[in-house]
Amino acid sequence: MSDLHIIILAAGKGTRMYSKMPKVLHQIGGKPMLAHVMDTALQLNPQSLHVVIGHGKEQVLAQLAQTYPQANWVEQTEQLGTGHAVKSALPHMPNTGKTLVLYGDVPLIDAPTLQQLLNAAGDEVGLLTDVLPEPTGYGRIIRNAQNQVIAIVEEKDANAEQKAIAEINTGIFVLPNAQLSGWLNALNANNAQGEYYLTDVIALANADHIAVHPVQVAHHYLAMGVNNKLQLSELNQIHRQHQAANLMAAGVTLIQASTFEMRGSLKHGQDVIIDANCVLVGENAFGDDVQIGAHCFIKNAKIGAGTVVEPFSHLEDCVIGENAKIGPYARLRPKAVLADEVHIGNFVEIKNSTIGHGSKANHLSYIGDATVGKKTNIGAGTITCNYDGVNKYRTEIGDEVRIGSDTMLVAPVKIGDKATTGAGSVITKDCESGKLVVARAKQVVVDNWVRPEKPSKS
Amino acid sequence: MSDLHIIILAAGKGTRMYSKMPKVLHQIGGKPMLAHVMDTALQLNPQSLHVVIGHGKEQVLAQLAQTYPQANWVEQTEQLGTGHAVKSALPHMPNTGKTLVLYGDVPLIDAPTLQQLLNAAGDEVGLLTDVLPEPTGYGRIIRNAQNQVIAIVEEKDANAEQKAIAEINTGIFVLPNAQLSGWLNALNANNAQGEYYLTDVIALANADHIAVHPVQVAHHYLAMGVNNKLQLSELNQIHRQHQAANLMAAGVTLIQASTFEMRGSLKHGQDVIIDANCVLVGENAFGDDVQIGAHCFIKNAKIGAGTVVEPFSHLEDCVIGENAKIGPYARLRPKAVLADEVHIGNFVEIKNSTIGHGSKANHLSYIGDATVGKKTNIGAGTITCNYDGVNKYRTEIGDEVRIGSDTMLVAPVKIGDKATTGAGSVITKDCESGKLVVARAKQVVVDNWVRPEKPSKS
Amino acid sequence: MSDLHIIILAAGKGTRMYSKMPKVLHQIGGKPMLAHVMDTALQLNPQSLHVVIGHGKEQVLAQLAQTYPQANWVEQTEQLGTGHAVKSALPHMPNTGKTLVLYGDVPLIDAPTLQQLLNAAGDEVGLLTDVLPEPTGYGRIIRNAQNQVIAIVEEKDANAEQKAIAEINTGIFVLPNAQLSGWLNALNANNAQGEYYLTDVIALANADHIAVHPVQVAHHYLAMGVNNKLQLSELNQIHRQHQAANLMAAGVTLIQASTFEMRGSLKHGQDVIIDANCVLVGENAFGDDVQIGAHCFIKNAKIGAGTVVEPFSHLEDCVIGENAKIGPYARLRPKAVLADEVHIGNFVEIKNSTIGHGSKANHLSYIGDATVGKKTNIGAGTITCNYDGVNKYRTEIGDEVRIGSDTMLVAPVKIGDKATTGAGSVITKDCESGKLVVARAKQVVVDNWVRPEKPSKS
Repeated sequence: MSDLHIIILAAGKGTRMYSKMPKVLHQIGGKPMLAHVMDTALQLNPQSLHVVIGHGKEQVLAQLAQTYPQANWVEQTEQLGTGHAVKSALPHMPNTGKTLVLYGDVPLIDAPTLQQLLNAAGDEVGLLTDVLPEPTGYGRIIRNAQNQVIAIVEEKDANAEQKAIAEINTGIFVLPNAQLSGWLNALNANNAQGEYYLTDVIALANADHIAVHPVQVAHHYLAMGVNNKLQLSELNQIHRQHQAANLMAAGVTLIQASTFEMRGSLKHGQDVIIDANCVLVGENAFGDDVQIGAHCFIKNAKIGAGTVVEPFSHLEDCVIGENAKIGPYARLRPKAVLADEVHIGNFVEIKNSTIGHGSKANHLSYIGDATVGKKTNIGAGTITCNYDGVNKYRTEIGDEVRIGSDTMLVAPVKIGDKATTGAGSVITKDCESGKLVVARAKQVVVDNWVRPEKPSKS
Repeated sequence: MSDLHIIILAAGKGTRMYSKMPKVLHQIGGKPMLAHVMDTALQLNPQSLHVVIGHGKEQVLAQLAQTYPQANWVEQTEQLGTGHAVKSALPHMPNTGKTLVLYGDVPLIDAPTLQQLLNAAGDEVGLLTDVLPEPTGYGRIIRNAQNQVIAIVEEKDANAEQKAIAEINTGIFVLPNAQLSGWLNALNANNAQGEYYLTDVIALANADHIAVHPVQVAHHYLAMGVNNKLQLSELNQIHRQHQAANLMAAGVTLIQASTFEMRGSLKHGQDVIIDANCVLVGENAFGDDVQIGAHCFIKNAKIGAGTVVEPFSHLEDCVIGENAKIGPYARLRPKAVLADEVHIGNFVEIKNSTIGHGSKANHLSYIGDATVGKKTNIGAGTITCNYDGVNKYRTEIGDEVRIGSDTMLVAPVKIGDKATTGAGSVITKDCESGKLVVARAKQVVVDNWVRPEKPSKS
Repeated sequence: MSDLHIIILAAGKGTRMYSKMPKVLHQIGGKPMLAHVMDTALQLNPQSLHVVIGHGKEQVLAQLAQTYPQANWVEQTEQLGTGHAVKSALPHMPNTGKTLVLYGDVPLIDAPTLQQLLNAAGDEVGLLTDVLPEPTGYGRIIRNAQNQVIAIVEEKDANAEQKAIAEINTGIFVLPNAQLSGWLNALNANNAQGEYYLTDVIALANADHIAVHPVQVAHHYLAMGVNNKLQLSELNQIHRQHQAANLMAAGVTLIQASTFEMRGSLKHGQDVIIDANCVLVGENAFGDDVQIGAHCFIKNAKIGAGTVVEPFSHLEDCVIGENAKIGPYARLRPKAVLADEVHIGNFVEIKNSTIGHGSKANHLSYIGDATVGKKTNIGAGTITCNYDGVNKYRTEIGDEVRIGSDTMLVAPVKIGDKATTGAGSVITKDCESGKLVVARAKQVVVDNWVRPEKPSKS
């Protein structure tokens, strides 16, 4: 069994986020920052995972407690510094093994980096560092000739030579549990902020002759923290680029990778092409040769091989078969289930409906709470009148039906196979198979009618 | 009273803009470049502000004269160089105080930089400089050991050593009014272009033993001029990034800051979220927790707290209450005024209409010139027939009304409270409260009808 | 006549593209990579142009053979290296002149660079090189004191000093035909991959005392090859920036150049403005003062001077006159031909129809297979019922007609000049000029009707 314990500090308010939501719930790629860190932590198979929460703890628990049953949620009632926060978790830690300290607002740290740090630390102390072109404000890393860290000097205490050091403390530590309790209890708050700093364990480790092994991150973003929406945006941008790069490496063609937005995941076949400015949310799955036009919004959609989605389509919680043709301006709402070769055209809304093989609704229609058979054509302007103001009713349309333009289908109503409805009909009663049904007034010329005309400009 | 006078040179044609519009009217962030410079100039509280115009002066005056009543518009009838342009304003200048020279095509100069330049100049000469990695083509700054500028050497006159100087003249000067007239009259046009260069005042200042105090800009963009659409695009990009950064610093979440486009201003509450690819134009105001979906276009909209705008919505000169739900594909046109909790759905257009608390129009409708009460439901495909080809008439719909799908409301017409219209009805007369009104033909089966079929491929 | 022969190597599979399509058919700016290289090759006016194909050769020929009748397509049945590929074309080459070797997956090479290389080569050997910050993996260029290339050393054979050389082989060569046959036949496959490398001709040239003249590319992208979708995306991004820069230099205003996507070409007049996030495909032509709103998709459209296209419009294979107003959310499908001053509004689809001068269809309509005269107004919700399930029929509408809202025009049908149709009418018979025609049921109140209501929550 793993001897690794992980503590994630997630109690801060994030004042500069200017939000009612605690900082760690703000999202990168559609997922709370804290969830990113927890997912990464779990990749290391820790023996225990502790999350120290404080500000907005109810919101944190409401959003994440069910998703992460393996987490131990520890409350820090007062926010008295990182040392104090880690100490909150101390009662849950054994005296053996090692503890990795992570941060709920440093969301892009990854497992390989942390594994490298754990390997470097061994049974001693590990410290993740970064080298910044502009290190001002950060604690500087003082190394000895053996490349070991002998101190972290804070900005305010640094002399000119130390200020010139570009290597800084990221705050991510590996600590031996045997010393953890002693070191945390030895911290004091004798500083300007009156807080207990975890950083001070370095001095204590040195005093105890326990070596500190530093590991430098390969990229700045791995250790970047989020204190405001600008930094959130920067990390979102990096995360977005990674998502795009991973999809492209796996063969997806992103015509304009720089505007591709994905918040979630995409399963995909071969030769998938996605045009500019698309937004993918949640869990999507696209078969071979799926083409997504520009400016689409797609959330939790399953799209079969060979299907083409034209620009400006809005798909949500829906299933589309193979070789279908969707859009432009098609809106598929939840529980729209389309069979193969279905065509849904412009300004058409499908909700909670099943559309059979090869059927078409190409123009200006609303199909809700309906079952449509195979090879049926739904004329322009068709509306399922599924709502009487209180209840919703279903419409059933058979195979090879031809619904005339501007047909109102007042549900509950059934249209038999091969039936036809006349344009402009309001269908309130079931239609027999094979029949033409109309509800239409006679066309007449109105005599003696005088058309309104603009006064002549004389 | 301020002893500062400002002259903005704005007479150029901008040949390489390839436009019928004079250069200074081309826009950064939806505002003419000249207006940016004038706004910045006014932040310095000058005693007088002179704008030298020439090419396209009628267009400049038509667009800006009313907005800037404090400006003195000076015509330069011939464009004979920057020295000549400044001289055009000379009759309006007193012999005391100082003059700041700005450019209508250097739009992103800011007040703090200019204040720093004014402070540095004191009663002598101030010169704004930049240090460029590629200075070729610009006038180089020759400084003495006291860091004072002793000359500006133009590219064609520079020796190898001078060409290696990276510090260049931005053209922005502060000049003492006591010397202004003398210096300007001493300029000559003995050069290749036959123009009077303002740059030559540096030599005159040196001859008069008046020190030239240089100030370097902190960022290149502050002094960048626009001569073509590429440069316009570059400064637009910088301006856009500043707008996005300012909003994020104030707490707005921009999910994709790199595609966020704002031409104007946004007042906002807390926890506003704006998804990718949105364009905001004019003066918008969003309350707390407003969410704007991807791909929206929003111009001069006031949106109440908690309202969600779904993707692909197009809002213009409209007011939306709190906790409303708009879109996707909703179009709100000028004078659409929506109360709290209104729902406007896909392919619905609202124009010059008031929609009461909690009312809904969710599908494929056109509501124009209408007043709709509270808790009313507008069925799919409803149209207010507000236009007889000459006049527009109003439709009045009461509270808790249920307009059936595909109802044509032929205005002027009134629908009483709690009335219901049957699907597919053309309503030409007022409807009483609480009644069901229909205008619908009887549904019949057409006997002996033979449906057209494709010939079988036998 | 030119003594230049060009061989383009285009036989590779592109395994890491993960595609059924051969690598060279993947697109940059909407055009296959190979077509970019062929277009560039043809700019050099070669005496002959040979394209060596292998993997997916049927697809290559199907896509490109007709477009490039001047090309000689050479099949390489086995892919045994670049030397072997060039050798495949040897039977088609004369013994005089020179041969330029290009690559179907190095798409952004340009004619000026190649001309420079040809000039440098003279009658000897020319070699295009690049200097990379990270040269690992590439063949390094070993130059002598005379700046001539004396060898190319592959990564695996390079010593530490050679590995430090940043100049690398791009693979693009000019070779004298007199030596070509001898050199190619002298190549061997005694290497790890068992392939014949064209690179080895450098050693052979040296042995024959024929000088190798290197030319360095001015930009990396000129020599960048595409092996995966990430690299395809990078070159697409560069190509996109060039397209945008060229348009801006010619005077087009791109409000957000970074999101502008063009796959094809644009002819344009003066003062064309294109807002953010637009996608232009194929051959478009915009007259003076055309304004394109945000989020538009435009393919093969001809748009007259002064026309304004509002956001979210989708235009394809259509012609629009001058001073027209299109959108938002307008969809013009193939063969939509609009005269001057036509207005097409939101949620309106026009297909295979001619719309006369000044006519309007502003809301929620489908006009297909129709001819519409001048100054006609098409009311909201109008539909041409052009399809009986088997055949398509035409609708003819005259001048100054007023089609009432929700009119169904059951084709074939003619509406005479100045005729009017009543709202909600289904028009199945021709309408006389000047008459009002209606097909409408009488409005009645349904007595004793009980409206469904939600049960009160008592």
